[in-house]
Amino acid sequence: MTSTLLTDLYQLTMLQAYFDEGMNGTAAFEFFARKLPPRRNFLMAAGLEQVLDFLEGLRFEPDELEWLAGCGRFHRRFVDSLADLRFTGDVVAMPEGTVFFPDEPILRVVAPLREAQLIETRVINLLQFQTLVASKAARVRLAAPGKLLVDFGLRRAHGAEAGLLSARASFIAGFDGSATVEAGRRYGIPLFGTMAHSFIQAHRDEATAFRRFAHSHPQASTLLIDTYDTEKAAHKVVALARELAGEGIPIQAVRIDSGDLGAHSFRVRAILDAAGLTKVKIFASSNLDEDAVAALLAHDAPIDGFGVGTRMNTSADHPYLDCAYKLEEYEGVARRKRSEGKATWPGRKQVFRRAEAGAAFAGDRLTTNDDEQPGQPLLSPVMRAGRRLAPSPPLGAVRDHAAAQLARLPAPLRGLEEAPPYPVEVAARLLELARRVDAEVLDRT
Amino acid sequence: MTSTLLTDLYQLTMLQAYFDEGMNGTAAFEFFARKLPPRRNFLMAAGLEQVLDFLEGLRFEPDELEWLAGCGRFHRRFVDSLADLRFTGDVVAMPEGTVFFPDEPILRVVAPLREAQLIETRVINLLQFQTLVASKAARVRLAAPGKLLVDFGLRRAHGAEAGLLSARASFIAGFDGSATVEAGRRYGIPLFGTMAHSFIQAHRDEATAFRRFAHSHPQASTLLIDTYDTEKAAHKVVALARELAGEGIPIQAVRIDSGDLGAHSFRVRAILDAAGLTKVKIFASSNLDEDAVAALLAHDAPIDGFGVGTRMNTSADHPYLDCAYKLEEYEGVARRKRSEGKATWPGRKQVFRRAEAGAAFAGDRLTTNDDEQPGQPLLSPVMRAGRRLAPSPPLGAVRDHAAAQLARLPAPLRGLEEAPPYPVEVAARLLELARRVDAEVLDRT
Repeated sequence: MTSTLLTDLYQLTMLQAYFDEGMNGTAAFEFFARKLPPRRNFLMAAGLEQVLDFLEGLRFEPDELEWLAGCGRFHRRFVDSLADLRFTGDVVAMPEGTVFFPDEPILRVVAPLREAQLIETRVINLLQFQTLVASKAARVRLAAPGKLLVDFGLRRAHGAEAGLLSARASFIAGFDGSATVEAGRRYGIPLFGTMAHSFIQAHRDEATAFRRFAHSHPQASTLLIDTYDTEKAAHKVVALARELAGEGIPIQAVRIDSGDLGAHSFRVRAILDAAGLTKVKIFASSNLDEDAVAALLAHDAPIDGFGVGTRMNTSADHPYLDCAYKLEEYEGVARRKRSEGKATWPGRKQVFRRAEAGAAFAGDRLTTNDDEQPGQPLLSPVMRAGRRLAPSPPLGAVRDHAAAQLARLPAPLRGLEEAPPYPVEVAARLLELARRVDAEVLDRT
Repeated sequence: MTSTLLTDLYQLTMLQAYFDEGMNGTAAFEFFARKLPPRRNFLMAAGLEQVLDFLEGLRFEPDELEWLAGCGRFHRRFVDSLADLRFTGDVVAMPEGTVFFPDEPILRVVAPLREAQLIETRVINLLQFQTLVASKAARVRLAAPGKLLVDFGLRRAHGAEAGLLSARASFIAGFDGSATVEAGRRYGIPLFGTMAHSFIQAHRDEATAFRRFAHSHPQASTLLIDTYDTEKAAHKVVALARELAGEGIPIQAVRIDSGDLGAHSFRVRAILDAAGLTKVKIFASSNLDEDAVAALLAHDAPIDGFGVGTRMNTSADHPYLDCAYKLEEYEGVARRKRSEGKATWPGRKQVFRRAEAGAAFAGDRLTTNDDEQPGQPLLSPVMRAGRRLAPSPPLGAVRDHAAAQLARLPAPLRGLEEAPPYPVEVAARLLELARRVDAEVLDRT
């Protein structure tokens, strides 16, 4: 599935043209977002780890080359030249979990033109999706401080990789875990999950289903109570808890998955508390997103945790980023795309972020790579000559970095509604470079 | 990536409970959509092929079992029991490309409970995504009759599998091809694509870039003309076409990727026609969806083909289906989920569709599996005892079936705006079964 042929045809047609011309000078491409989705105040970078894996593993397999040679579009000498192609370039990037804003590159690739071009499609495919999901999941995290948040979205994620990578991206952004088993195995993400309605329905009655499940999972029984009648089921949980107490089996939590989650949670909390089950948690799910969670908590619904799926991991209100991976320099000369509404800032760039130690971020400045500005530079080297410069940080450290970033966002940007934009200035040096590039381009067109 | 552990944790916790109880009777689950997304008049089934592949290949690998045994949630006897687990059930389904409506099952699995339960997550993950994309792509096809439509969406698809499967689903729904090379290799989908803006920018000037590309691809040169100034570039195409005519190299098409696509297309068409290049096609891309395409064609924009990406293959206006895979029968007894707002029709079901031969579909009837109704039954057996009953139809045949389905949709449903709903009746026999199941459930709660 992740063959090197997982790319756009035009990458290969361009490569053949470059091959025929003998063109393969050093190119610099940068990945950035053009603008924020509606109602969003920031983005959170994610996906770098998978990009670096992709670059380190880049090669055409013999059967892929055979297919290319036989497809009727490419000549043999060009196809043969691909056999030795590896990624030999350098990469600088913002660490995963870093908050960023439009026009700020989060990744720069500097490599021979053909390599830097070939990777475009998959680099965007990996960075845009995880960044999209991390940015959405961060909103859910900000809307529910202190609450347990679990990714429930594999089934309606867009395919296998989307399910896995959205578990990863939402964990980075502050979710506590995922229901996706493979994400637990692969990334060490804590797993959550107990039973579906079918489990209740397959049994003769609900109380039997609850009892059997608790016996099979004496350490981890969250009981799903909305299959027939939520409050009646809560009473059955009370009866079962008394019965199981003698066996030393606790009920951990109940889950409500339909109806008015707020109203049910108040009634269920009252039923549980009246029976002394104050430690049994209430977990809610069903079409949740940051707005639904915020609305429940604004009414003080006694819900301890949320399963958030589809709307988070498809970023349902805006399921894509207006982002690009653009040529900014070739053979030492800065370039700039001028297409209407799609112009870019030329050259290799750096982002400096100002903030008092530990205080909220005060503003960013976008400038050329060789400029110095007040604040901290956000892009730093991660790969040289096709090899990582250091082992990747553990996912827990990435998640801590993300949490620290969210904590330092100016308060209005942490809300769910659109706030005045975070200040991102373009430094004089970059403005000057853009003017110079424009003059040269006018000359060439 | 497509490990059997690509599932929700609760599938495995339920399976252990069933194992402990010795429960593994015959279960029937059905996949259906609860309702249409806003502004949609129909859905188009897709993804069955990948579901059947998944079922035929279902097994736990030794390293997966080791991980499960070591993760602290499952006991050894249960994990050992998974080593022999295969899918041994039966499947009935609507053929891919079939148009369907809410509450109509497009797939039924009848299998031992544990098998039928375990597969839930991935079955939904595969069916909902391809159905979502095929349903969206069908709208683009209906909005642009006779026009060339190409999937351009891999880069902003949600990961690798989403890119591949959206190429497949959009081809089924009537797209002519894709830019995704691996989709060409794997599914035989026709490929399209030529150059990016970076190709123009990497060259000294636009005319040189055009000439070099045409020489490298003498059979297939579509030139991207919006990097600097679209109309100036069209004049360069005219000059180049004259130059290349002597060498017998034709220019096939130009592509416009920014600005007011309609206005540019009129001006570019005039420039090309004035030079006698009436056969050079105009291809347009840039944030297109069915509405944008329809608006361009409503103004008679002289555009011959469209590259449609992100908004189609993320189904951007509604990136998920309200769909489910629900237990409808266990050990011969019909079941029904009664959760508020999420109730389902019980038992094994069939859908009959009425239509005069070759005429538009006149209405569907949802009924029990053992009932007969006027019209044609839409669900038929595709797998028995875990094996396909017949080789899968070639993708071209699936695409033809889809086109025939769209042609027989009542005319108002083929429009982009919401039409009065297509008539789907529930037959007396199913209503009666639902009443009986409700009475039994009341008895049990």
